Amino acid sequence: MNANGTGGISKQTLRRLPLYLNCLKSRLQSGHVTVSSNDIATLLGLNQVQVRKDLASVSSGGKPKVGYVTQELISDIENFLGYNNVDSAILVGVGQLGRALLSYSGFSKCGVEIVAAFDSSEQVVDRIVSGKRILPLEKLINLCDRMQIHIGIITVPEDSAQEVCDWMIRGGIKAIWNFAPVHLKVPKDVIVQNENLAANLAVLSRQYAESLK
Amino acid sequence: MNANGTGGISKQTLRRLPLYLNCLKSRLQSGHVTVSSNDIATLLGLNQVQVRKDLASVSSGGKPKVGYVTQELISDIENFLGYNNVDSAILVGVGQLGRALLSYSGFSKCGVEIVAAFDSSEQVVDRIVSGKRILPLEKLINLCDRMQIHIGIITVPEDSAQEVCDWMIRGGIKAIWNFAPVHLKVPKDVIVQNENLAANLAVLSRQYAESLK
Repeated sequence: MNANGTGGISKQTLRRLPLYLNCLKSRLQSGHVTVSSNDIATLLGLNQVQVRKDLASVSSGGKPKVGYVTQELISDIENFLGYNNVDSAILVGVGQLGRALLSYSGFSKCGVEIVAAFDSSEQVVDRIVSGKRILPLEKLINLCDRMQIHIGIITVPEDSAQEVCDWMIRGGIKAIWNFAPVHLKVPKDVIVQNENLAANLAVLSRQYAESLK
Repeated sequence: MNANGTGGISKQTLRRLPLYLNCLKSRLQSGHVTVSSNDIATLLGLNQVQVRKDLASVSSGGKPKVGYVTQELISDIENFLGYNNVDSAILVGVGQLGRALLSYSGFSKCGVEIVAAFDSSEQVVDRIVSGKRILPLEKLINLCDRMQIHIGIITVPEDSAQEVCDWMIRGGIKAIWNFAPVHLKVPKDVIVQNENLAANLAVLSRQYAESLK
């Protein structure tokens, strides 16, 4: 395993793969049955060497001068990212953001299904949201353990995020997608991916301000 | 301006600043009135040299052996990220995700306010969502121009994202936060920050799978 905990491929490469996918699909739609790494680099404004390396690490289909068969490269990347095996995830915190994620159809395309959602509020528990019955937090540990679920999504307010995180860890969750703007304390074998939406927007706004200088 | 279009500071540093903020606030809460860059590096599991460089680029308050006064460093980072001047943004696409963003109180803390929201569906236009009346798309260009708004958020399905993007650009939007899983074509002076939630979850799931190897 490398320093990023992602086997032979860097986290940076992993995060670029979805960009390549979008680009390849739009090429295929416009009738390009083959594609070169240079085409992709130009279209996405990325470094050619980097794109070539990234693609070589997930597909062996590239041929000198011809490039890749577009459809094959799409399949290779989708297989690599696990779009074709379904991983199960749970979500805790059924507020507006939690609801948006539960109703989002894009996850299943990417091979992840949110199989259960939890909340601590009596007003939400037992209600049906996007076809799923919301469960009380007390059922989390048992359900994760029984169904062998290892991916957890945290969409609770920041002051209860660590507590929810601790419950998840007791239930055997090993990968946490955290939308609460707090730094979670977790054991070494648990991966946390933070998604601080407000900060991302602030960063974009700052980038724009800097671009005017 | 550097290659990232962010003046004297790299995009990577910008994206780490919110992490520092969370960490500093929790230090302050637990009574630490001063803090060193090494403390922060250890708490966040980051490289010490990198943290020292990042902090030095946004604050001149660091003193050898003492470190920073926690509250001052918090203020310096917040000022740098523009948390104290309000930037206006518009949002297009009032589905579940759009609603979640409209109702999210965290943006104003970070100095960005969503001042108007648009949708093309007659069922949504004129309805009030989180205190804002949803406007028809036709009003977008005029409103952005009149109010001098430069930040746009796209939360429409992928097949209408490019069209919405084109409207935004005609209205003078210069920084786009794009949640649709497509590669948007924009002029060189427009910054796009893509937020592909499904792909982020797929990447986390893949990281977990790799960590088992």
